[in-house]
Amino acid sequence: MTYCVAMRLKAGLLFASDSRTNAGVDHIATFRKMNVFELPGERLIVILNAGNLATTQSVLSLLRQRLTHDGASLHNVGSMYEAAELVGRTLKEIVARDANDATLGQGVDFGANFLVGGQIRGEGPRLFHVYPQGNFIESTEDTPYFQIGEAKYGKPIIDRVIRYDSTLSEATKCTLISFDSTIRSNLSVGLPLDLLIYRADSFAPAAPHRVTGDDPYFSKLRRGWGEGLRKVFAKLPDEDWFSSGS
Amino acid sequence: MTYCVAMRLKAGLLFASDSRTNAGVDHIATFRKMNVFELPGERLIVILNAGNLATTQSVLSLLRQRLTHDGASLHNVGSMYEAAELVGRTLKEIVARDANDATLGQGVDFGANFLVGGQIRGEGPRLFHVYPQGNFIESTEDTPYFQIGEAKYGKPIIDRVIRYDSTLSEATKCTLISFDSTIRSNLSVGLPLDLLIYRADSFAPAAPHRVTGDDPYFSKLRRGWGEGLRKVFAKLPDEDWFSSGS
Repeated sequence: MTYCVAMRLKAGLLFASDSRTNAGVDHIATFRKMNVFELPGERLIVILNAGNLATTQSVLSLLRQRLTHDGASLHNVGSMYEAAELVGRTLKEIVARDANDATLGQGVDFGANFLVGGQIRGEGPRLFHVYPQGNFIESTEDTPYFQIGEAKYGKPIIDRVIRYDSTLSEATKCTLISFDSTIRSNLSVGLPLDLLIYRADSFAPAAPHRVTGDDPYFSKLRRGWGEGLRKVFAKLPDEDWFSSGS
Repeated sequence: MTYCVAMRLKAGLLFASDSRTNAGVDHIATFRKMNVFELPGERLIVILNAGNLATTQSVLSLLRQRLTHDGASLHNVGSMYEAAELVGRTLKEIVARDANDATLGQGVDFGANFLVGGQIRGEGPRLFHVYPQGNFIESTEDTPYFQIGEAKYGKPIIDRVIRYDSTLSEATKCTLISFDSTIRSNLSVGLPLDLLIYRADSFAPAAPHRVTGDDPYFSKLRRGWGEGLRKVFAKLPDEDWFSSGS
Protein backbone atom coordinates (compact mmCIF):
# COMPACT_ATOMS: atom_id res chain seq x y z
CA MET A 1 0.00 0.00 0.00
CA THR A 2 1.05 3.60 0.37
CA TYR A 3 0.47 6.66 2.51
CA CYS A 4 0.56 10.19 1.08
CA VAL A 5 -0.51 13.52 2.57
CA ALA A 6 -0.67 16.95 1.03
CA MET A 7 -1.68 20.22 2.71
CA ARG A 8 -2.52 23.62 1.34
CA LEU A 9 -2.07 26.11 4.16
CA LYS A 10 -2.04 29.88 4.23
CA ALA A 11 1.76 29.74 4.41
CA GLY A 12 2.23 27.32 1.55
CA LEU A 13 2.11 23.69 0.52
CA LEU A 14 3.39 20.49 2.07
CA PHE A 15 3.71 17.12 0.33
CA ALA A 16 4.76 13.85 1.93
CA SER A 17 4.82 10.26 0.75
CA ASP A 18 6.21 6.95 1.89
CA SER A 19 8.09 4.71 -0.53
CA ARG A 20 6.86 1.17 0.02
CA THR A 21 4.91 -0.76 -2.58
CA ASN A 22 3.71 -4.28 -2.19
CA ALA A 23 1.88 -6.92 -4.12
CA GLY A 24 1.32 -9.35 -1.30
CA VAL A 25 3.82 -9.53 1.54
CA ASP A 26 6.48 -11.30 -0.49
CA HIS A 27 6.77 -8.68 -3.17
CA ILE A 28 7.80 -5.51 -1.41
CA ALA A 29 9.78 -2.81 -3.14
CA THR A 30 10.78 0.82 -2.77
CA PHE A 31 9.35 3.32 -5.26
CA ARG A 32 9.29 7.08 -4.98
CA LYS A 33 5.69 8.33 -5.05
CA MET A 34 6.53 12.02 -5.26
CA ASN A 35 6.87 13.55 -8.72
CA VAL A 36 7.99 17.12 -9.28
CA PHE A 37 7.36 19.18 -12.42
CA GLU A 38 8.83 22.66 -12.30
CA LEU A 39 9.85 25.72 -14.18
CA PRO A 40 11.64 27.63 -11.41
CA GLY A 41 10.33 31.16 -11.09
CA GLU A 42 7.18 30.29 -12.99
CA ARG A 43 5.54 27.08 -11.73
CA LEU A 44 5.89 24.11 -9.40
CA ILE A 45 3.60 21.10 -9.67
CA VAL A 46 3.91 18.12 -7.34
CA ILE A 47 2.05 14.86 -7.87
CA LEU A 48 1.75 12.13 -5.23
CA ASN A 49 0.33 8.79 -6.22
CA ALA A 50 -1.29 5.76 -4.59
CA GLY A 51 -2.79 2.64 -6.11
CA ASN A 52 -1.91 0.28 -8.94
CA LEU A 53 1.81 0.79 -9.65
CA ALA A 54 1.51 -0.04 -13.34
CA THR A 55 -1.21 2.60 -13.69
CA THR A 56 0.56 5.31 -11.71
CA GLN A 57 3.89 4.74 -13.48
CA SER A 58 2.25 4.92 -16.90
CA VAL A 59 0.35 8.10 -16.03
CA LEU A 60 3.54 9.76 -14.81
CA SER A 61 5.55 8.51 -17.80
CA LEU A 62 3.04 9.97 -20.22
CA LEU A 63 2.82 13.26 -18.33
CA ARG A 64 6.61 13.54 -18.46
CA GLN A 65 6.95 12.38 -22.07
CA ARG A 66 4.36 14.91 -23.21
CA LEU A 67 6.13 17.89 -21.64
CA THR A 68 7.78 18.40 -25.03
CA HIS A 69 4.90 17.65 -27.36
CA ASP A 70 2.59 20.21 -28.91
CA GLY A 71 -0.56 19.69 -26.85
CA ALA A 72 -1.39 20.46 -23.24
CA SER A 73 1.34 19.57 -20.74
CA LEU A 74 2.18 20.29 -17.13
CA HIS A 75 4.65 22.89 -18.43
CA ASN A 76 2.06 24.88 -20.35
CA VAL A 77 -1.34 24.48 -18.63
CA GLY A 78 -2.60 27.87 -17.47
CA SER A 79 -3.80 26.92 -13.99
CA MET A 80 -3.58 24.21 -11.37
CA TYR A 81 -7.18 23.36 -12.20
CA GLU A 82 -6.08 22.49 -15.73
CA ALA A 83 -3.17 20.50 -14.30
CA ALA A 84 -5.59 18.37 -12.24
CA GLU A 85 -7.79 17.96 -15.30
CA LEU A 86 -4.79 16.80 -17.35
CA VAL A 87 -3.80 14.24 -14.72
CA GLY A 88 -7.39 12.96 -14.60
CA ARG A 89 -7.57 12.72 -18.39
CA THR A 90 -4.27 10.83 -18.58
CA LEU A 91 -5.43 8.47 -15.85
CA LYS A 92 -8.63 7.69 -17.76
CA GLU A 93 -6.56 7.07 -20.90
CA ILE A 94 -4.35 4.50 -19.14
CA VAL A 95 -7.21 2.75 -17.37
CA ALA A 96 -9.10 2.53 -20.68
CA ARG A 97 -5.99 0.99 -22.27
CA ASP A 98 -5.19 -1.53 -19.51
CA ALA A 99 -8.55 -2.46 -17.99
CA ASN A 100 -10.11 -4.13 -21.02
CA ASP A 101 -12.13 -7.30 -21.55
CA ALA A 102 -9.02 -9.48 -21.46
CA THR A 103 -7.92 -8.33 -18.01
CA LEU A 104 -11.05 -7.41 -16.06
CA GLY A 105 -11.88 -11.05 -15.36
CA GLN A 106 -8.60 -11.35 -13.46
CA GLY A 107 -9.91 -9.33 -10.56
CA VAL A 108 -7.13 -6.76 -10.66
CA ASP A 109 -7.82 -3.24 -9.42
CA PHE A 110 -6.33 -0.84 -11.97
CA GLY A 111 -7.35 2.21 -9.94
CA ALA A 112 -5.13 4.97 -8.66
CA ASN A 113 -5.47 8.17 -6.67
CA PHE A 114 -3.36 11.29 -7.16
CA LEU A 115 -2.76 14.41 -5.11
CA VAL A 116 -1.89 17.26 -7.43
CA GLY A 117 -0.72 20.52 -5.91
CA GLY A 118 1.44 23.48 -6.68
CA GLN A 119 1.45 27.05 -7.86
CA ILE A 120 1.45 28.59 -11.32
CA ARG A 121 2.27 32.28 -11.64
CA GLY A 122 -0.96 34.26 -11.79
CA GLU A 123 -2.78 32.34 -9.07
CA GLY A 124 -2.22 31.19 -5.48
CA PRO A 125 -1.12 27.71 -4.40
CA ARG A 126 -3.80 25.08 -5.00
CA LEU A 127 -4.26 21.41 -4.17
CA PHE A 128 -6.45 18.74 -5.80
CA HIS A 129 -7.33 15.12 -5.16
CA VAL A 130 -7.81 13.22 -8.44
CA TYR A 131 -10.00 10.13 -7.98
CA PRO A 132 -9.60 6.77 -9.76
CA GLN A 133 -12.46 7.88 -12.04
CA GLY A 134 -10.42 10.89 -13.18
CA ASN A 135 -12.65 13.53 -11.61
CA PHE A 136 -11.27 15.63 -8.77
CA ILE A 137 -11.89 17.88 -5.79
CA GLU A 138 -9.99 20.93 -4.52
CA SER A 139 -8.91 21.66 -0.97
CA THR A 140 -10.39 24.66 0.83
CA GLU A 141 -9.68 26.65 3.99
CA ASP A 142 -12.11 24.38 5.86
CA THR A 143 -10.49 21.22 4.53
CA PRO A 144 -6.86 22.14 4.03
CA TYR A 145 -5.44 18.64 3.58
CA PHE A 146 -5.96 15.43 1.61
CA GLN A 147 -4.66 11.91 2.23
CA ILE A 148 -4.51 8.91 -0.09
CA GLY A 149 -3.58 5.28 0.60
CA GLU A 150 -3.46 3.99 4.18
CA ALA A 151 -4.92 7.22 5.53
CA LYS A 152 -6.81 6.20 8.65
CA TYR A 153 -4.03 5.50 11.17
CA GLY A 154 -2.50 8.93 10.73
CA LYS A 155 -5.69 10.96 10.39
CA PRO A 156 -6.57 11.64 14.07
CA ILE A 157 -3.39 13.62 14.79
CA ILE A 158 -3.87 15.77 11.67
CA ASP A 159 -7.52 16.39 12.57
CA ARG A 160 -6.48 17.51 16.04
CA VAL A 161 -3.65 19.82 15.02
CA ILE A 162 -3.83 21.21 11.50
CA ARG A 163 -5.77 24.34 10.58
CA TYR A 164 -5.48 26.50 7.47
CA ASP A 165 -3.31 28.97 9.38
CA SER A 166 -0.93 26.37 10.87
CA THR A 167 2.72 27.16 10.13
CA LEU A 168 4.82 25.07 7.77
CA SER A 169 6.95 23.90 10.73
CA GLU A 170 3.83 22.71 12.55
CA ALA A 171 2.64 21.00 9.40
CA THR A 172 6.02 19.28 9.02
CA LYS A 173 6.01 18.04 12.62
CA CYS A 174 2.43 16.86 12.39
CA THR A 175 3.02 15.07 9.11
CA LEU A 176 6.08 13.23 10.40
CA ILE A 177 4.14 12.14 13.49
CA SER A 178 1.25 11.03 11.32
CA PHE A 179 3.66 8.87 9.29
CA ASP A 180 5.28 7.50 12.43
CA SER A 181 1.88 6.34 13.76
CA THR A 182 1.00 4.78 10.42
CA ILE A 183 4.31 2.97 10.05
CA ARG A 184 4.06 1.52 13.56
CA SER A 185 0.57 0.14 12.91
CA ASN A 186 0.76 -0.93 9.26
CA LEU A 187 3.49 -2.97 7.60
CA SER A 188 2.56 -1.83 4.10
CA VAL A 189 3.73 1.74 4.74
CA GLY A 190 7.50 2.14 5.06
CA LEU A 191 10.49 4.46 5.20
CA PRO A 192 12.12 6.39 3.65
CA LEU A 193 9.70 9.30 3.29
CA ASP A 194 9.83 12.08 0.74
CA LEU A 195 8.92 15.50 2.03
CA LEU A 196 8.57 18.73 0.13
CA ILE A 197 7.64 22.11 1.55
CA TYR A 198 6.80 25.04 -0.66
CA ARG A 199 6.42 28.55 0.70
CA ALA A 200 3.52 30.37 -1.00
CA ASP A 201 4.52 32.73 -3.83
CA SER A 202 8.21 31.85 -3.54
CA PHE A 203 8.45 30.03 -6.90
CA ALA A 204 11.69 28.66 -5.51
CA PRO A 205 13.27 25.48 -6.89
CA ALA A 206 11.78 22.41 -5.25
CA ALA A 207 13.97 20.98 -2.49
CA PRO A 208 12.52 17.60 -1.58
CA HIS A 209 13.96 16.01 1.51
CA ARG A 210 14.36 12.27 1.88
CA VAL A 211 13.70 11.20 5.48
CA THR A 212 15.36 7.92 6.43
CA GLY A 213 15.03 5.95 9.65
CA ASP A 214 18.20 7.45 11.08
CA ASP A 215 17.40 11.05 10.21
CA PRO A 216 18.29 12.97 13.40
CA TYR A 217 15.25 15.27 13.35
CA PHE A 218 12.80 12.47 12.62
CA SER A 219 14.38 10.31 15.34
CA LYS A 220 14.11 13.18 17.83
CA LEU A 221 10.47 13.74 16.93
CA ARG A 222 9.53 10.06 17.18
CA ARG A 223 11.20 9.72 20.56
CA GLY A 224 9.81 13.00 21.89
CA TRP A 225 6.31 12.24 20.71
CA GLY A 226 6.28 8.67 22.05
CA GLU A 227 7.63 9.75 25.45
CA GLY A 228 5.34 12.77 25.58
CA LEU A 229 2.25 10.67 24.83
CA ARG A 230 3.11 8.17 27.51
CA LYS A 231 3.59 10.98 30.03
CA VAL A 232 0.27 12.61 29.16
CA PHE A 233 -1.36 9.19 29.34
CA ALA A 234 0.13 8.42 32.74
CA LYS A 235 -1.07 11.76 34.12
CA LEU A 236 -4.69 11.26 33.05
CA PRO A 237 -6.95 10.33 35.96
CA ASP A 238 -7.92 6.71 36.60
CA GLU A 239 -11.46 5.73 37.36
CA ASP A 240 -12.66 2.53 38.93
CA TRP A 241 -16.38 2.57 38.25
CA PHE A 242 -15.70 -0.16 35.75
CA SER A 243 -14.23 -2.75 38.02
CA SER A 244 -16.37 -5.59 39.21
CA GLY A 245 -15.76 -8.26 41.78
CA SER A 246 -13.31 -6.24 43.86
CA MET B 1 -20.01 0.97 10.54
CA THR B 2 -18.87 0.05 14.03
CA TYR B 3 -15.83 0.04 16.26
CA CYS B 4 -15.23 -2.66 18.87
CA VAL B 5 -12.16 -3.52 20.94
CA ALA B 6 -11.51 -6.38 23.31
CA MET B 7 -8.38 -7.04 25.38
CA ARG B 8 -7.21 -10.04 27.33
CA LEU B 9 -4.66 -8.82 29.85
CA LYS B 10 -2.99 -10.52 32.78
CA ALA B 11 -5.40 -8.68 35.07
CA GLY B 12 -8.55 -9.57 33.18
CA LEU B 13 -10.69 -8.72 30.20
CA LEU B 14 -11.94 -5.48 28.69
CA PHE B 15 -14.70 -5.11 26.12
CA ALA B 16 -15.81 -1.90 24.43
CA SER B 17 -18.16 -1.12 21.57
CA ASP B 18 -19.80 1.90 20.02
CA SER B 19 -23.50 1.89 19.21
CA ARG B 20 -23.91 3.42 15.77
CA THR B 21 -25.13 1.47 12.78
CA ASN B 22 -25.67 2.88 9.36
CA ALA B 23 -26.84 1.82 5.98
CA GLY B 24 -25.77 4.88 4.06
CA VAL B 25 -25.69 8.24 5.82
CA ASP B 26 -29.47 8.64 5.89
CA HIS B 27 -30.19 5.47 7.79
CA ILE B 28 -28.35 5.83 11.07
CA ALA B 29 -29.53 4.10 14.22
CA THR B 30 -28.35 3.11 17.68
CA PHE B 31 -27.88 -0.59 18.42
CA ARG B 32 -26.01 -2.15 21.30
CA LYS B 33 -23.18 -4.33 19.98
CA MET B 34 -22.25 -5.84 23.33
CA ASN B 35 -23.96 -9.06 24.32
CA VAL B 36 -23.48 -10.68 27.73
CA PHE B 37 -24.14 -14.34 28.56
CA GLU B 38 -23.49 -15.22 32.18
CA LEU B 39 -24.01 -17.67 34.98
CA PRO B 40 -22.59 -15.65 37.89
CA GLY B 41 -20.02 -17.60 39.84
CA GLU B 42 -19.52 -20.02 36.94
CA ARG B 43 -19.07 -18.26 33.58
CA LEU B 44 -19.15 -14.94 31.78
CA ILE B 45 -19.14 -14.74 27.99
CA VAL B 46 -19.18 -11.41 26.15
CA ILE B 47 -19.75 -11.12 22.41
CA LEU B 48 -19.08 -7.93 20.42
CA ASN B 49 -20.25 -7.78 16.84
CA ALA B 50 -19.51 -5.80 13.67
CA GLY B 51 -20.85 -6.19 10.15
CA ASN B 52 -24.22 -6.88 8.57
CA LEU B 53 -26.85 -6.06 11.22
CA ALA B 54 -29.33 -8.67 9.97
CA THR B 55 -26.63 -11.32 10.26
CA THR B 56 -25.35 -10.30 13.68
CA GLN B 57 -28.86 -9.95 15.14
CA SER B 58 -29.86 -13.39 13.86
CA VAL B 59 -26.70 -15.01 15.21
CA LEU B 60 -27.26 -13.48 18.65
CA SER B 61 -30.98 -14.33 18.60
CA LEU B 62 -30.23 -17.97 17.88
CA LEU B 63 -27.47 -18.13 20.49
CA ARG B 64 -29.89 -16.72 23.07
CA GLN B 65 -32.87 -18.84 22.00
CA ARG B 66 -30.80 -22.00 22.18
CA LEU B 67 -29.67 -21.40 25.77
CA THR B 68 -32.63 -23.57 26.81
CA HIS B 69 -32.56 -26.25 24.14
CA ASP B 70 -30.92 -29.65 24.51
CA GLY B 71 -27.83 -29.17 22.34
CA ALA B 72 -24.69 -27.09 22.84
CA SER B 73 -25.27 -23.58 24.14
CA LEU B 74 -23.24 -20.74 25.64
CA HIS B 75 -24.50 -21.89 29.05
CA ASN B 76 -23.15 -25.42 28.74
CA VAL B 77 -20.06 -25.37 26.49
CA GLY B 78 -17.05 -26.60 28.43
CA SER B 79 -14.52 -23.98 27.34
CA MET B 80 -14.20 -20.60 25.68
CA TYR B 81 -12.76 -22.41 22.67
CA GLU B 82 -16.06 -24.24 22.30
CA ALA B 83 -17.92 -20.96 22.75
CA ALA B 84 -16.00 -19.42 19.83
CA GLU B 85 -16.66 -22.55 17.79
CA LEU B 86 -20.39 -22.30 18.54
CA VAL B 87 -20.50 -18.64 17.48
CA GLY B 88 -18.66 -19.50 14.26
CA ARG B 89 -21.02 -22.40 13.53
CA THR B 90 -24.10 -20.25 14.14
CA LEU B 91 -22.67 -17.53 11.89
CA LYS B 92 -22.13 -20.03 9.07
CA GLU B 93 -25.71 -21.28 9.54
CA ILE B 94 -27.17 -17.78 9.13
CA VAL B 95 -24.97 -16.83 6.19
CA ALA B 96 -25.92 -20.10 4.46
CA ARG B 97 -29.60 -19.28 5.08
CA ASP B 98 -29.49 -15.63 3.94
CA ALA B 99 -26.78 -15.46 1.27
CA ASN B 100 -28.41 -17.68 -1.33
CA ASP B 101 -28.82 -17.48 -5.10
CA ALA B 102 -31.72 -15.06 -4.80
CA THR B 103 -29.75 -12.47 -2.84
CA LEU B 104 -26.10 -12.73 -3.89
CA GLY B 105 -26.73 -10.86 -7.12
CA GLN B 106 -27.81 -7.85 -5.09
CA GLY B 107 -24.24 -7.12 -4.03
CA VAL B 108 -24.99 -7.21 -0.30
CA ASP B 109 -22.23 -8.17 2.10
CA PHE B 110 -23.73 -10.61 4.59
CA GLY B 111 -20.48 -10.90 6.52
CA ALA B 112 -19.90 -10.22 10.20
CA ASN B 113 -17.04 -10.33 12.68
CA PHE B 114 -17.35 -11.25 16.35
CA LEU B 115 -15.10 -10.83 19.35
CA VAL B 116 -15.87 -13.60 21.84
CA GLY B 117 -14.25 -13.43 25.25
CA GLY B 118 -14.84 -14.47 28.81
CA GLN B 119 -14.03 -17.03 31.43
CA ILE B 120 -15.52 -20.42 32.23
CA ARG B 121 -14.63 -22.04 35.56
CA GLY B 122 -11.77 -24.47 35.03
CA GLU B 123 -9.74 -22.26 32.72
CA GLY B 124 -8.36 -18.72 32.59
CA PRO B 125 -9.93 -15.78 30.72
CA ARG B 126 -9.70 -16.18 26.94
CA LEU B 127 -10.49 -14.03 23.91
CA PHE B 128 -11.26 -15.00 20.30
CA HIS B 129 -11.87 -13.20 17.01
CA VAL B 130 -14.43 -15.06 14.89
CA TYR B 131 -14.08 -14.20 11.18
CA PRO B 132 -16.91 -13.85 8.64
CA GLN B 133 -16.01 -17.38 7.44
CA GLY B 134 -16.72 -18.76 10.92
CA ASN B 135 -13.15 -19.74 11.73
CA PHE B 136 -11.35 -17.92 14.52
CA ILE B 137 -8.08 -16.93 16.21
CA GLU B 138 -7.22 -16.54 19.89
CA SER B 139 -5.37 -13.67 21.54
CA THR B 140 -1.98 -14.32 23.12
CA GLU B 141 0.40 -12.50 25.46
CA ASP B 142 2.16 -11.06 22.40
CA THR B 143 -1.11 -9.92 20.83
CA PRO B 144 -3.37 -9.16 23.76
CA TYR B 145 -6.09 -7.26 21.89
CA PHE B 146 -8.39 -7.51 18.88
CA GLN B 147 -10.38 -4.84 17.07
CA ILE B 148 -13.25 -5.17 14.58
CA GLY B 149 -15.00 -2.55 12.45
CA GLU B 150 -13.40 0.87 11.93
CA ALA B 151 -10.20 -0.22 13.66
CA LYS B 152 -7.47 1.83 12.04
CA TYR B 153 -7.99 5.32 13.52
CA GLY B 154 -7.77 4.04 17.07
CA LYS B 155 -5.02 1.46 16.59
CA PRO B 156 -1.87 3.60 16.98
CA ILE B 157 -2.60 4.62 20.58
CA ILE B 158 -3.30 1.00 21.59
CA ASP B 159 -0.11 -0.17 19.88
CA ARG B 160 1.87 2.45 21.79
CA VAL B 161 0.40 1.81 25.22
CA ILE B 162 -1.08 -1.64 25.77
CA ARG B 163 0.98 -4.64 26.88
CA TYR B 164 -0.20 -7.93 28.38
CA ASP B 165 0.67 -6.65 31.84
CA SER B 166 -1.08 -3.27 31.50
CA THR B 167 -3.56 -2.62 34.31
CA LEU B 168 -7.30 -2.56 33.76
CA SER B 169 -7.34 1.18 34.53
CA GLU B 170 -4.71 1.78 31.86
CA ALA B 171 -6.66 -0.36 29.44
CA THR B 172 -9.83 1.61 30.19
CA LYS B 173 -8.10 4.96 29.65
CA CYS B 174 -6.45 3.78 26.46
CA THR B 175 -9.67 2.33 25.09
CA LEU B 176 -11.64 5.52 25.73
CA ILE B 177 -8.92 7.57 24.01
CA SER B 178 -8.92 5.15 21.09
CA PHE B 179 -12.68 5.63 20.73
CA ASP B 180 -12.35 9.40 21.03
CA SER B 181 -9.83 9.50 18.17
CA THR B 182 -12.03 7.26 16.04
CA ILE B 183 -15.20 9.26 16.68
CA ARG B 184 -13.45 12.53 15.80
CA SER B 185 -12.22 11.15 12.46
CA ASN B 186 -15.09 8.89 11.36
CA LEU B 187 -18.78 9.75 11.32
CA SER B 188 -19.89 6.12 11.23
CA VAL B 189 -18.69 5.46 14.78
CA GLY B 190 -20.74 7.15 17.49
CA LEU B 191 -21.59 7.49 21.16
CA PRO B 192 -22.76 6.09 23.50
CA LEU B 193 -20.15 3.41 24.17
CA ASP B 194 -20.61 0.20 26.11
CA LEU B 195 -17.71 -0.79 28.33
CA LEU B 196 -17.28 -3.90 30.39
CA ILE B 197 -14.30 -4.80 32.56
CA TYR B 198 -13.87 -8.24 34.03
CA ARG B 199 -11.24 -8.97 36.68
CA ALA B 200 -9.63 -12.39 36.06
CA ASP B 201 -11.02 -15.24 38.19
CA SER B 202 -13.61 -13.00 39.86
CA PHE B 203 -16.67 -14.66 38.23
CA ALA B 204 -18.49 -11.53 39.37
CA PRO B 205 -21.75 -10.44 37.77
CA ALA B 206 -21.12 -8.39 34.63
CA ALA B 207 -21.43 -4.65 35.23
CA PRO B 208 -21.39 -3.00 31.80
CA HIS B 209 -21.09 0.74 31.83
CA ARG B 210 -22.75 2.94 29.23
CA VAL B 211 -20.54 5.94 28.41
CA THR B 212 -22.45 8.92 27.04
CA GLY B 213 -21.10 12.18 25.67
CA ASP B 214 -21.60 13.96 28.99
CA ASP B 215 -20.04 11.26 31.15
CA PRO B 216 -17.78 13.22 33.54
CA TYR B 217 -14.84 10.80 33.40
CA PHE B 218 -14.94 10.47 29.61
CA SER B 219 -15.20 14.27 29.26
CA LYS B 220 -12.22 14.76 31.56
CA LEU B 221 -10.17 12.21 29.59
CA ARG B 222 -11.03 13.72 26.22
CA ARG B 223 -10.14 17.21 27.38
CA GLY B 224 -6.99 16.10 29.19
CA TRP B 225 -5.78 14.04 26.26
CA GLY B 226 -6.47 16.72 23.66
CA GLU B 227 -4.76 19.44 25.71
CA GLY B 228 -1.88 17.13 26.63
CA LEU B 229 -1.26 16.20 22.99
CA ARG B 230 -1.23 19.80 21.88
CA LYS B 231 1.27 20.64 24.65
CA VAL B 232 3.59 17.77 23.72
CA PHE B 233 3.27 18.79 20.08
CA ALA B 234 4.10 22.43 20.80
CA LYS B 235 7.19 21.41 22.78
CA LEU B 236 8.65 19.25 20.02
CA PRO B 237 11.55 20.91 18.21
CA ASP B 238 11.01 22.67 14.88
CA GLU B 239 13.36 22.16 12.00
CA ASP B 240 13.73 24.32 8.97
CA TRP B 241 15.67 22.17 6.57
CA PHE B 242 12.49 21.83 4.62
CA SER B 243 11.87 25.44 3.80
CA SER B 244 12.81 26.75 0.45
CA GLY B 245 12.85 30.21 -0.95
CA SER B 246 13.37 31.95 2.36
